[in-house]
Amino acid sequence: MMRSGKDAYQPRPEHHFTFGLWTVGNPGRDPFGEPVRPALSPVAIVRKLAELGAYGVNLHDNDLVPAGSTATERDRIVREFTQVLADTGMKVPMATTNLFSDPAFRDGAFTSRDARVRAYALQKTLAAIDLGVELGAATYVCWGGREGVETNAAKDPRTALGWYRDAINYLCEYVRSQRYDLRFALEAKPNEPRGDIFLPTTGHMLAFIYTLDHPEMVGVNPEVAHERMAGLDFSHAVAQALEAGKLFHIDLNGQQIGRFDQDLRFGSDDPKGAFFLVKLLEDVKWPGMRHFDSHAYRTEDEAGVWDFAAGSMRTYLILKEKVERFNADPEIQQLLTEVDGGKSARVSFGELQNMNFDLAALRKRGYAYERLDQLTMELLLGVR
Amino acid sequence: MMRSGKDAYQPRPEHHFTFGLWTVGNPGRDPFGEPVRPALSPVAIVRKLAELGAYGVNLHDNDLVPAGSTATERDRIVREFTQVLADTGMKVPMATTNLFSDPAFRDGAFTSRDARVRAYALQKTLAAIDLGVELGAATYVCWGGREGVETNAAKDPRTALGWYRDAINYLCEYVRSQRYDLRFALEAKPNEPRGDIFLPTTGHMLAFIYTLDHPEMVGVNPEVAHERMAGLDFSHAVAQALEAGKLFHIDLNGQQIGRFDQDLRFGSDDPKGAFFLVKLLEDVKWPGMRHFDSHAYRTEDEAGVWDFAAGSMRTYLILKEKVERFNADPEIQQLLTEVDGGKSARVSFGELQNMNFDLAALRKRGYAYERLDQLTMELLLGVR
Amino acid sequence: MMRSGKDAYQPRPEHHFTFGLWTVGNPGRDPFGEPVRPALSPVAIVRKLAELGAYGVNLHDNDLVPAGSTATERDRIVREFTQVLADTGMKVPMATTNLFSDPAFRDGAFTSRDARVRAYALQKTLAAIDLGVELGAATYVCWGGREGVETNAAKDPRTALGWYRDAINYLCEYVRSQRYDLRFALEAKPNEPRGDIFLPTTGHMLAFIYTLDHPEMVGVNPEVAHERMAGLDFSHAVAQALEAGKLFHIDLNGQQIGRFDQDLRFGSDDPKGAFFLVKLLEDVKWPGMRHFDSHAYRTEDEAGVWDFAAGSMRTYLILKEKVERFNADPEIQQLLTEVDGGKSARVSFGELQNMNFDLAALRKRGYAYERLDQLTMELLLGVR
Amino acid sequence: MMRSGKDAYQPRPEHHFTFGLWTVGNPGRDPFGEPVRPALSPVAIVRKLAELGAYGVNLHDNDLVPAGSTATERDRIVREFTQVLADTGMKVPMATTNLFSDPAFRDGAFTSRDARVRAYALQKTLAAIDLGVELGAATYVCWGGREGVETNAAKDPRTALGWYRDAINYLCEYVRSQRYDLRFALEAKPNEPRGDIFLPTTGHMLAFIYTLDHPEMVGVNPEVAHERMAGLDFSHAVAQALEAGKLFHIDLNGQQIGRFDQDLRFGSDDPKGAFFLVKLLEDVKWPGMRHFDSHAYRTEDEAGVWDFAAGSMRTYLILKEKVERFNADPEIQQLLTEVDGGKSARVSFGELQNMNFDLAALRKRGYAYERLDQLTMELLLGVR
Repeated sequence: MMRSGKDAYQPRPEHHFTFGLWTVGNPGRDPFGEPVRPALSPVAIVRKLAELGAYGVNLHDNDLVPAGSTATERDRIVREFTQVLADTGMKVPMATTNLFSDPAFRDGAFTSRDARVRAYALQKTLAAIDLGVELGAATYVCWGGREGVETNAAKDPRTALGWYRDAINYLCEYVRSQRYDLRFALEAKPNEPRGDIFLPTTGHMLAFIYTLDHPEMVGVNPEVAHERMAGLDFSHAVAQALEAGKLFHIDLNGQQIGRFDQDLRFGSDDPKGAFFLVKLLEDVKWPGMRHFDSHAYRTEDEAGVWDFAAGSMRTYLILKEKVERFNADPEIQQLLTEVDGGKSARVSFGELQNMNFDLAALRKRGYAYERLDQLTMELLLGVR
Repeated sequence: MMRSGKDAYQPRPEHHFTFGLWTVGNPGRDPFGEPVRPALSPVAIVRKLAELGAYGVNLHDNDLVPAGSTATERDRIVREFTQVLADTGMKVPMATTNLFSDPAFRDGAFTSRDARVRAYALQKTLAAIDLGVELGAATYVCWGGREGVETNAAKDPRTALGWYRDAINYLCEYVRSQRYDLRFALEAKPNEPRGDIFLPTTGHMLAFIYTLDHPEMVGVNPEVAHERMAGLDFSHAVAQALEAGKLFHIDLNGQQIGRFDQDLRFGSDDPKGAFFLVKLLEDVKWPGMRHFDSHAYRTEDEAGVWDFAAGSMRTYLILKEKVERFNADPEIQQLLTEVDGGKSARVSFGELQNMNFDLAALRKRGYAYERLDQLTMELLLGVR
Repeated sequence: MMRSGKDAYQPRPEHHFTFGLWTVGNPGRDPFGEPVRPALSPVAIVRKLAELGAYGVNLHDNDLVPAGSTATERDRIVREFTQVLADTGMKVPMATTNLFSDPAFRDGAFTSRDARVRAYALQKTLAAIDLGVELGAATYVCWGGREGVETNAAKDPRTALGWYRDAINYLCEYVRSQRYDLRFALEAKPNEPRGDIFLPTTGHMLAFIYTLDHPEMVGVNPEVAHERMAGLDFSHAVAQALEAGKLFHIDLNGQQIGRFDQDLRFGSDDPKGAFFLVKLLEDVKWPGMRHFDSHAYRTEDEAGVWDFAAGSMRTYLILKEKVERFNADPEIQQLLTEVDGGKSARVSFGELQNMNFDLAALRKRGYAYERLDQLTMELLLGVR
Repeated sequence: MMRSGKDAYQPRPEHHFTFGLWTVGNPGRDPFGEPVRPALSPVAIVRKLAELGAYGVNLHDNDLVPAGSTATERDRIVREFTQVLADTGMKVPMATTNLFSDPAFRDGAFTSRDARVRAYALQKTLAAIDLGVELGAATYVCWGGREGVETNAAKDPRTALGWYRDAINYLCEYVRSQRYDLRFALEAKPNEPRGDIFLPTTGHMLAFIYTLDHPEMVGVNPEVAHERMAGLDFSHAVAQALEAGKLFHIDLNGQQIGRFDQDLRFGSDDPKGAFFLVKLLEDVKWPGMRHFDSHAYRTEDEAGVWDFAAGSMRTYLILKEKVERFNADPEIQQLLTEVDGGKSARVSFGELQNMNFDLAALRKRGYAYERLDQLTMELLLGVR
């Protein structure tokens, strides 16, 4: 039975919604302006998100422990944070490293032309992995924020890819040596803040994984906004990752094609694309986290931030209910059955070569996709 | 009172929906493939669209009268077409010229480097204007299909703009000389089939109009797909045209940003953008035609074409009803009132220069746009 | 005679090269990272640019006078700055206002939903105009950094355009009341930092000007990067502005289509586009400033900043020499002559309607644009 | 020694330049217009290309043997074609199948919803493989022209990827069963003629290969235009394929970002991108074909087509010479040495964790990329 009524859209921990500390904590700085909101403490964020129905939070090392903290400070911070997690029941399913804010990473981290920077990036990541594991994270995201170039004169891309691979191999080795129960999820982005970032889409990242020493430890973390920046269909990329057993994490948000990284509230700009993404995840009962990597508009004060967080989860649940309706709609399902010719039977080469096809019929048949799409849109718009 | 129930979405002539003969008549040829559907006769198109609830049809000269027809053939075709219009009550509110199919226009029509082609394009347009007026059209659309370049080495853009202006001035002069009751609507497009088309957006076209001999006779025909190809917000362009009194016609369809010209079914890819467009047109009770310049997917047979046509009108009416809800929603309207600081009172320079502002308050206030947008999306998704 | 030898590329004040204080002074902050370079003082910038051969500098009010300065501090700063201008012979041909850094402008300045913000933006601009005029500026640029929206639910675009117009009209009135010899140049940008910015291209901005109270005081300031973000041909936009007598200023830089605002070194990413732009400006001997609105890659230290500045000017001069070669190249000019059918003679309607065209010939003739473009590219690559 | 003088740019068979029959044979039809050039016979194309210095031609089955030919006609056509190859010494290094022109493929070939179409597509491909092998082809390109959707309602992308994989596995099996010496090169494209095409970039295609039954038989055929449509850096994609041993073929042409598929003359729109691509191929002495998959502007007659073909090859050779200069330029090479910190030495985890970094130094060092890029541009523009 389909749950009805508005409380179907009330997020609960079982829905596995997570937010990055950096997302609701985003103070609204942008390339042309200063922060517009005061920083929120990690502890306050956890409390509020728990109240709203989230399952957990994710973090970069420096979201929790500011760069330059002493060991004592770090321990105090982690202790307080662990306490609030215990108090609220919130989890930290994923952790990552900030390899982009420090000016030392101006030419990248794992692919900087300076070998000392590459080594420092690894050192920082080992510490961040330790922190993540301490907080219970089972997934470690690597986003190569500045792994790229403004001019191809600067780096031979083959050399850079080699550096990148060396780094991921080294990290996998470390996790194995520590017997951590941790998997890596690599996140692609085509550009910004670099002119061109290496391994720019989920596809390139997936292909790269097969060239690693331990491909079984590594999957992808596709992000709506990053794939949309390049104008690609996000659900297709996610389907490819799913099919390859490589969907280890996902970043939900919104983005217009061909623009700066907008990180809009999930479902706020392209509800149709969001619908087909939710359909894919729910149809396979994907067990991972529904992680929102987005932030409130810069026009907002703190109240607006929580509107944003609540709206993100609520829209997911609205779309999830629509997926159930789509799957249960007799007319839509009938159209899908009629069109589907069934699984291609594998025949012998000789048999195939001698097969006769009624080309005249194949040439004139229609697929009723206009009708199918119209019914889908009406369902999405709530008039069906 | 808001009309309720599903028949609110039943198109009727009073809704002023029109289709181009070339839209439902599109046989599905594309750069990589042959036609997939037989041609539909103009007479058959008019009958079927009347049945579906449309108000009228629009046409290029050669959509009705094939290139190379004799005067006798032309007259017979026009007579039969006029008859079916009379039979069905359908109108022809807009006409235009095909200045792009003939290989003679390979370098453009009004801006071809060959002066003979420029003259021929004018001659063909005069005849098409006569035809349009004969059929009752009050609006004449000029779409500069091939007015552009692949290489800027070929044309000085100032020269080309001069040729373009000469042509439009000449056509205005002709309409005046004939005392036709006809206005021009110029249609912009950024690229395709040329690498770069002159006057690539509604903005550039609007600006160009002010440099004509008779700007009062000329407005714009913005097209969703053309503005979206360049990643621009369509409703903003339409608002600018409306505000300037220059929205003479409009082309409704759908399009993903940064792609080939898709001419998708209106509302099928970006319902939020479509909603704000409908809001703009309905809020001002714009009296013009809701013209669909789009075509069915190439996967469709004729049945799919009519699904496409019916869906286009139906989606417009669904969105129109949502606009009424938006305007009547107390919570949404409250948010808009709270935020709006009212009309800027015009004060003297001295008064302004001595004004004190509570900058601290202005810096921290929020605008509640996340909440406003979430409510809008929920209304659009039919759960509000 | 064409100047030969490498010193043809040595910038001199007569070339009218200018830089914004904010361009060479850019400390390399971006959405994902902190500044990488210390701030340079305006005085130091002027000295260094003079040494490199520039003509002048341009500025936002707060580039020179930090926000919150007292009147005394302001006067001291302006005095010292005026002194270094006198010492070096450098000019300040253009000034503008920073209406985007302060969190008060989070929802825009002239189009903020808060009427107090709109008033404050005007107050700040009047002061900045006074400063600009004091420094000798003859052009005042208005870039509507945040004049836009993330969601169209927030603002009716017609209302926003009305506020925008009121603001520009008010500023024009102020300049007239003060009898300043100052013209306004409006700068368009499609997006970033807002989701969609009003009047997104040079075309839209040009059209808007015609609706102002004093259109003769207002022109445009097209920027390469802003037009390229939308995938439009920049030289076409500049040609339209030139032709309309509205090219009051220009921003030279580089940008890949469909990305965040890159502000690359002029000519560094699209030399062909840069060539045709220089051709346009030089062919008409445009008297304005060649202003570079760009910044060094974030990988650079201060030495890299000056490499960037010197390279910007040098590339312009290299392209300028290539324009002379293009105009003097007999084979290229021959191809242009052959193709050009001459000015379209304006004939009477009757004459035109009776004209016979050799359509078979027009349909099969070629335009030799592949050859023309290949010669152009070879000239550009220096092998011709 | 670097070859000097203009004849360095004279193409010869040893340069391995190839053209598709469909490229120089393109009659200039587009979505808005009819063909502008008569068809050229394959025999005439081979003769002319041999004369211009090409190494060979590539073909779709129906480029040579029209659809619907009888077995006798096919044999005659192949015989005559083989004869002209022998006469001229031209080769056919690559072949492919036309799976997009026939209306039967309106919903795709290997991923059509109709199982009969999927089977017919395989049957047609087996015959085309036989033809390709008969003509001596060692590489078989698969471009999934219509393998995609306009609406995601139509196909579950996981199902579609499964069909795609089944097809390629079947074809590999066939080649093995025939003991053909043939490898497959899969070609990605993001969109056009479908709204979204499956496996939209070289990265997605590479990743897909690892999931096949015989990945060793399958590589990629990256195309400049297809990767650029999505705004991605082409040389990075090629580097990834090279590094993975998967660059089996390449399609050279030109394209502006975010537009319809332009297939421009190689090097004509983005000489910097073309330079870095040539650098990559020449630096590794890649042994494959330099295949041009592009066509003359539609403004051209047959003479323009040959200008286009000659220019394509000539530009490659001009850029190749510039690569040699870049590699030999002492100042450029010095900058690359200075910046490069050398190969990252792999240290033990404990050693790395205890390493001290001079962060202050790493934070302020510059990379001199502005200078490096300026020198590269001057070399490219021929003034260095």
